[in-house]
Amino acid sequence: MSLDTYFRYIEACNHFDPADFLPFYIAGRLVGRVPAAHASALDGRPQLERHADGFALVAGDSFAARSEVIDSLVGDLIAAGLPLRRRKEKFAVVNSWGDEPLAALDRGAVPFFGIKAFGVHLNVFVRTPEGLDMWLGRRSRTKPVAPGQLDNLVAGGQPIGLTLWENLAKEADEEAGIPADLISYAKPVSAVSYRMNADGGSRDDVLFAYDLEVDEAFKPVSHDDEHEAFLRLPLARVIELLQDPHEFKFNVTLVLVDFLVRHGYIAADSPGFLDLVKALRR
Amino acid sequence: MSLDTYFRYIEACNHFDPADFLPFYIAGRLVGRVPAAHASALDGRPQLERHADGFALVAGDSFAARSEVIDSLVGDLIAAGLPLRRRKEKFAVVNSWGDEPLAALDRGAVPFFGIKAFGVHLNVFVRTPEGLDMWLGRRSRTKPVAPGQLDNLVAGGQPIGLTLWENLAKEADEEAGIPADLISYAKPVSAVSYRMNADGGSRDDVLFAYDLEVDEAFKPVSHDDEHEAFLRLPLARVIELLQDPHEFKFNVTLVLVDFLVRHGYIAADSPGFLDLVKALRR
Repeated sequence: MSLDTYFRYIEACNHFDPADFLPFYIAGRLVGRVPAAHASALDGRPQLERHADGFALVAGDSFAARSEVIDSLVGDLIAAGLPLRRRKEKFAVVNSWGDEPLAALDRGAVPFFGIKAFGVHLNVFVRTPEGLDMWLGRRSRTKPVAPGQLDNLVAGGQPIGLTLWENLAKEADEEAGIPADLISYAKPVSAVSYRMNADGGSRDDVLFAYDLEVDEAFKPVSHDDEHEAFLRLPLARVIELLQDPHEFKFNVTLVLVDFLVRHGYIAADSPGFLDLVKALRR
Repeated sequence: MSLDTYFRYIEACNHFDPADFLPFYIAGRLVGRVPAAHASALDGRPQLERHADGFALVAGDSFAARSEVIDSLVGDLIAAGLPLRRRKEKFAVVNSWGDEPLAALDRGAVPFFGIKAFGVHLNVFVRTPEGLDMWLGRRSRTKPVAPGQLDNLVAGGQPIGLTLWENLAKEADEEAGIPADLISYAKPVSAVSYRMNADGGSRDDVLFAYDLEVDEAFKPVSHDDEHEAFLRLPLARVIELLQDPHEFKFNVTLVLVDFLVRHGYIAADSPGFLDLVKALRR
């Protein structure tokens, strides 16, 4: 099978034009990019100053002060009709993963400011005599993002204040009823990353991928409204579904392609194998 | 455990200084780099001409003609005492993997010309109740490269005229007595790459990594002189041995670190996890 479909997913997730954005600084660090189209709506805001080639947050030098100022800015920008919102969940503003957070920012404002975001995605699979089966979720039709599309059984953005592992365990419990003793067998195995124009700004995301092998008896149970249904599919069927560009949530495709590579579903002799392995991490 | 040891292996395999080399062209394509220190010994050779910022092979425009001319050059350079040799195995000269070969070149001359080279490495492992065990080989003391060091059970450079799969099956049979029906379960799972000053020139290598799960009954048998002994070690012991920078053949370390990542032996929360995942492929 040609890898073209997979490369199209990677291209779609990396459709980013730097010319559409201006750098955004907090505490002298480049932490994101704001839409150039909204520069005039940002000019003159008391929480911002022009800095180098972009905008900088004007705040005291504590985490609390920066978080408070950017939150007041978020409120003002929402009031001004700009494309951001409040999701009542805080993400960390960092220059790179593992850094001390410079501020907390509402998740719904992350794309507008082009802040780096992180997430955990769990590949849940069953080993059968015929190969691997994968457990997937069908996203609820009421979700604002990717309603009705197929998704990893468990996936979630990384909120401030949790370790990746704590977040994975929380999401696994909420979204699929996976108990603590089972999730303890999940293995961190990879990461994919991408940057794209999206959601009124840009997404600059890293998804940490975990694999969890479960047995025949495993059945997911939803404790939240993330998924309306669960499906267990042979990998061959997952590969077929990946040929339809609208079946899966956009970024889940990268996690699945990475899974296909790691589990030997793509021949190394295929033209493009090497490029594919590299392109999953920009 | 800190990932510093792993980063040191990656750095060692990417210790490359472009200033030490001049571009080498065949048929107008940049295919390698020759040592700048030997430029005067290359000047005036009938098989070469000065081209742009480096040297170009002077040959007819067929694969056969180029292969013959570069082979005569190899003979002349060996006679002149330059650091290359004949290993009686031909590699393909390509601009990138999968391209039609521009010429065949003796493996022993590949580093001098800085030609891209490819190889297959097989991780052979056993699933036990306590975790994974890995089968490794101890390289023969008589090998010119990395004598006495630990190695993947099966590994080999990619000669011209074989597919990766054919090469893997051949090496698996010769080096570990793995029969065709067993190697058919090997899975292509990853690739690592690096470029370094080495062997009188440079290495610009891609190693295709395969995983093969075997059962308790598996015992390797050598049909060649590659390895003097075989070892089956728990991954925890492999990780311990990796702390000694001299235990493993230099490039096998990258294949093993990639294996550790893919099999969940490195916490995603570890500082450096993301950089490690990316750095394995330059």
